[in-house]
Amino acid sequence: MINEKDIGLVESIFSFWDKLTPQQASLILGNSINANYKRGENIHRGDNDCVGVLLIKSGELRTYILSEDGRDITLYRLGAGDVCILSGASCILKNITFDVHIDAEKDSELISINSAVFQQLCNENIYAENFSYKSTIDRFSDVMWAIQQILFLSFDKRLTIFLLDEISRTGSNTIIMTHEQIAKYIGSAREVVSRMLKYFEREGLVKLTRGKIEVIDAVLLKEII
Amino acid sequence: MINEKDIGLVESIFSFWDKLTPQQASLILGNSINANYKRGENIHRGDNDCVGVLLIKSGELRTYILSEDGRDITLYRLGAGDVCILSGASCILKNITFDVHIDAEKDSELISINSAVFQQLCNENIYAENFSYKSTIDRFSDVMWAIQQILFLSFDKRLTIFLLDEISRTGSNTIIMTHEQIAKYIGSAREVVSRMLKYFEREGLVKLTRGKIEVIDAVLLKEII
Repeated sequence: MINEKDIGLVESIFSFWDKLTPQQASLILGNSINANYKRGENIHRGDNDCVGVLLIKSGELRTYILSEDGRDITLYRLGAGDVCILSGASCILKNITFDVHIDAEKDSELISINSAVFQQLCNENIYAENFSYKSTIDRFSDVMWAIQQILFLSFDKRLTIFLLDEISRTGSNTIIMTHEQIAKYIGSAREVVSRMLKYFEREGLVKLTRGKIEVIDAVLLKEII
Repeated sequence: MINEKDIGLVESIFSFWDKLTPQQASLILGNSINANYKRGENIHRGDNDCVGVLLIKSGELRTYILSEDGRDITLYRLGAGDVCILSGASCILKNITFDVHIDAEKDSELISINSAVFQQLCNENIYAENFSYKSTIDRFSDVMWAIQQILFLSFDKRLTIFLLDEISRTGSNTIIMTHEQIAKYIGSAREVVSRMLKYFEREGLVKLTRGKIEVIDAVLLKEII
């Protein structure tokens, strides 16, 4: 069971809450548990394991797809107050025929709702079903954005967008990541990332030290986009 | 206005029809028109032109995204009896923030429903809204499939899948397309397609003549996948 504060969060995130019968509301709360993950831990493996619907109390989740040879493409990230429906979507929504992988990118505190119970709710209550669809379509828009970045943007633009996103997300001009990790995130190869970063360094845009990239001139960097 | 037979089609495709008030039903029918497109004609340009929700009576529509430099990636195809909601989706569903291009791939007969009217219906009637979401999510699954083909499959597999899909779709072993067109469809370059097709020809899988590809050994070709 989850505590009073968590119950408040469930009620505020699930905008359909006032459309539930008392039985439905207590069924959901009775099947909600706390689930905490360490940074880097895998939450959902993409093989229909139905981890449930996840509400994010704190932390960050990264959703990605993975090729057979281990290449991964980030689709989107979710943070505090977001609901992660694709974790159990292929179990809950019959017309979701694909699956994704989800990792904790930071230490994350989640509320996990049993996916069989949530599916039953969606079958019974059109407002809950509607909410699930709506959340999924929000992610569809995210995915389309990510794809267009990957397929269409020239590589210097992709790398620049990644660097700028990182510094705006962390509030620091220094990005503590290896070139290998960056390559993984933007769907490229380490060599390609290193070559472009060295080019950026020569242009006075960034300063490279082992495992770190310092953005020196964000204004000039923005002009690449 | 559309004729009796077309009204029957609207009622059968829109599974929420019995949840409409008589006013809502006649609003939809009063704002439905016939729209015919020739093979190759562009239907929706991706710049929020809100062509409306399209029901396909006959023909085929291809949905794709387009890069600034003209590269195009096929996301999915729709045929008779399908509903094309993404044509007006960014007008109808507030949380769709991307846009796609749609062409008629064959001469196509459509019923087009005004998107402002359809949006109003979705605002008023949760069953219609639900139907729109559900149709959109079906396409989300299609798009995820297409992306994984493009990003992850090695090129010989992608080309093979394309050739096999074409012969199963048309029922003929001869594909009447240029290498340029095939490259466009599978998100590649003409040179790459030509090189791989010549390799397939040397392997006795296909026979190439100007503007045509004849699949000679579909069984052997399937082994590539």
